[in-house]
Amino acid sequence: MKVQVLRDILEFNDTLADQNRSMFDAKKVFVINLMSSPGAGKTTLLERTLEEGVLRDYRIGVIEGDIQTTLDGERLEALNVPVVQINTAVACHLDGQMISNACTALDLDNLDILFIENVGNLVCPAEFRVGEHHKVVLLSVPEGADKPLKYPLMFHESSLLLITKTDMLPYTDISLDTVRRNAMRVNNTIDIIELSAKTGEGITHWGEWIKAKRKAHFGT
Amino acid sequence: MKVQVLRDILEFNDTLADQNRSMFDAKKVFVINLMSSPGAGKTTLLERTLEEGVLRDYRIGVIEGDIQTTLDGERLEALNVPVVQINTAVACHLDGQMISNACTALDLDNLDILFIENVGNLVCPAEFRVGEHHKVVLLSVPEGADKPLKYPLMFHESSLLLITKTDMLPYTDISLDTVRRNAMRVNNTIDIIELSAKTGEGITHWGEWIKAKRKAHFGT
Repeated sequence: MKVQVLRDILEFNDTLADQNRSMFDAKKVFVINLMSSPGAGKTTLLERTLEEGVLRDYRIGVIEGDIQTTLDGERLEALNVPVVQINTAVACHLDGQMISNACTALDLDNLDILFIENVGNLVCPAEFRVGEHHKVVLLSVPEGADKPLKYPLMFHESSLLLITKTDMLPYTDISLDTVRRNAMRVNNTIDIIELSAKTGEGITHWGEWIKAKRKAHFGT
Repeated sequence: MKVQVLRDILEFNDTLADQNRSMFDAKKVFVINLMSSPGAGKTTLLERTLEEGVLRDYRIGVIEGDIQTTLDGERLEALNVPVVQINTAVACHLDGQMISNACTALDLDNLDILFIENVGNLVCPAEFRVGEHHKVVLLSVPEGADKPLKYPLMFHESSLLLITKTDMLPYTDISLDTVRRNAMRVNNTIDIIELSAKTGEGITHWGEWIKAKRKAHFGT
């Protein structure tokens, strides 16, 4: 019975995710679902992306998902972008319904790119589509190279792996070659960008990746 | 309906957790449920705990929870302790049934302390009791000081917070005072130990904490 209930929940979620996706396509809003363990640097990445101006030609919005607090939303609102904060209370992931609700508070006609920052969790968010064009997973250097093998669905579902906090490489024994090899084992088409929000390494590359994917999807 | 189903699942889990706990008490096995984000250092902590011999007078066993792979179980088996590996496949946490099943493969009559290493996830494992005497949460320095506020249930349910990877303090801007203050805001009786598996800082303190709690519970 538990399995049947889970299947119903996922099917209902897929329906809502498809509706969201149709809405985003109609409005030409390119949507990226950012996922990672807690503390891998999702909010800091968005801060740097906005501060560096690598997407300065695009109108950007953010949906912030957290179990509790508006701390992350406040950090991004300070950078003068529209932010909708979702507090999931007990839910360990965002779902299609939450994103649909959050979008009613956004002016989609005046957005080109929407970032959805999921709840910090390397497991559950991968199971729930929200209508995004691409899922992007962040893995921070201190977390270790074995994570793609231990949490394969997340890396399998993502179009891009951002290896974050590369400034910490000298202080760990992680091998980036091993990270790349492990990620490719579960998803041999995944793109990989190394990035440090502290030094700025990779931020431009990340911006170019978004622009190229947006152009590939919308043609402009 | 979703809420009712969730409540049924949690109530059923509590029943199994209570049965496990009765079994552990009857066998005088002291059980610690280790939880954290992926990559916070649960397996490395157990390796160091065994290698340093801080619990050398106790017979130790480990139940390893991972979605996929036996990588962590193999690391610990190399240290000559009985290890049962659980692969949860899709489940984002361990539950009472999984621990009950795993215990059939352990000789509880010949164990004094059982470590349960949960799935790397700062959210869901906190909701599911497994029969443990204490929940212990690890928060690694690179994850940032805001985590107790953003994932409050995990810190609320835990008896002890281990702040791990303190050797990385010089390379981050985290304030341990802020971590402590945030943890106390959600749980003002939580114990806190700072620890580095790399330098060995705090490992003895951690061992003493376990011995004291075991003695407090079993009287020996």
